[in-house]
Amino acid sequence: MAGNATTGTAAPSAFELAQRQGDEAIRTTLLDAASRLLAAEGPQALALRRIAAEVGCSTTVLYRMFGGKAGLTEALYIEGFQRFRRCLAAVPHDPDPRVHLRELGLAYRDNALAERNYYGLMFGEPVPGFQPGEKALLTALSAYTILEDAVAACAAAGLLTDADPRHVAVSFWASVHGFVSLELNGHLPDADAILDTLMLGISSGFFVTPRK
Amino acid sequence: MAGNATTGTAAPSAFELAQRQGDEAIRTTLLDAASRLLAAEGPQALALRRIAAEVGCSTTVLYRMFGGKAGLTEALYIEGFQRFRRCLAAVPHDPDPRVHLRELGLAYRDNALAERNYYGLMFGEPVPGFQPGEKALLTALSAYTILEDAVAACAAAGLLTDADPRHVAVSFWASVHGFVSLELNGHLPDADAILDTLMLGISSGFFVTPRK
Repeated sequence: MAGNATTGTAAPSAFELAQRQGDEAIRTTLLDAASRLLAAEGPQALALRRIAAEVGCSTTVLYRMFGGKAGLTEALYIEGFQRFRRCLAAVPHDPDPRVHLRELGLAYRDNALAERNYYGLMFGEPVPGFQPGEKALLTALSAYTILEDAVAACAAAGLLTDADPRHVAVSFWASVHGFVSLELNGHLPDADAILDTLMLGISSGFFVTPRK
Repeated sequence: MAGNATTGTAAPSAFELAQRQGDEAIRTTLLDAASRLLAAEGPQALALRRIAAEVGCSTTVLYRMFGGKAGLTEALYIEGFQRFRRCLAAVPHDPDPRVHLRELGLAYRDNALAERNYYGLMFGEPVPGFQPGEKALLTALSAYTILEDAVAACAAAGLLTDADPRHVAVSFWASVHGFVSLELNGHLPDADAILDTLMLGISSGFFVTPRK
């Protein structure tokens, strides 16, 4: 009661809640169709008329929800990073921060494979000239921060080498990103074994101390 | 003399040589224009009419040289990997194979930055549905083999951990590829420091042995 009284808004009615659920379902359907078209056919397929035809609605629905093509692209970017953040945030905190970091690496890959249509938009540049806005950048940052915090926890536990933990976090991201990009583009037939080697190499290095 | 006598072909005349030089220059100009358009505007810009207009020639020149759009895409792919291979092959062989591998990583990045318009085509999937042909795949392989040989040299010198050298080579490639992709897409403001950390991490690992 107090919350509604101070803000002056009434609690949403059952009808309003149902409407919101419907809007959310429509929104997700539109975004998934748009990301699928973008991944399959490139940016020229990201036309409101094309997406409307794919989903079976009028372009008015798309204009009302996203304002236009730029708003739709921004919404795709945000949706991709929100799913990514939820996936990383769902990784349980192992007492050993190295194990946690490794689990985050595996979750990163799982999300990229599950959401491959979003992945290229998030980290590539599939829509020439598109610049994400402030909300999109903050969403991306909130996902990345989970990786950075995991590396910082390794540093706090005295487990890291002398390197700057922020640089280690980016390096870890770059390595996993490279692996995922190559896997998504079909360049890694033996992907599971590669990921094992990569994760082991990241933690312990690929080289031994040379024999004297 | 012997070579020409046995094959039955005459040595090319000065005129023919000049013609070939001209063809090669035209070819490079067309490929560079096409790769620039592809990187800047996406696959819909990869139209023969558009490229011809950009360079100031007729589409007949493009049809004669590449046979059509598929042949042009294939030629772009081959050109990118040939430049890449030349760049890796030019790295001097340091007596320490770890140093050689590191230098290859740096050359990989230099080539990607210098040839950024080709890079996405080589390792991404910017032209939906394009499948490189046999010659293109062999050219790509001949570049990759240089990295693989460098890792095998580390293994032969007893410098590698127990991991399969072929998996280490792919992991090394994935890490550098991820770094380069993120740098090309503007995600790494502090790229030089990241690359230092990444290279150090790849060789020695990011983690120390935990304190007891």
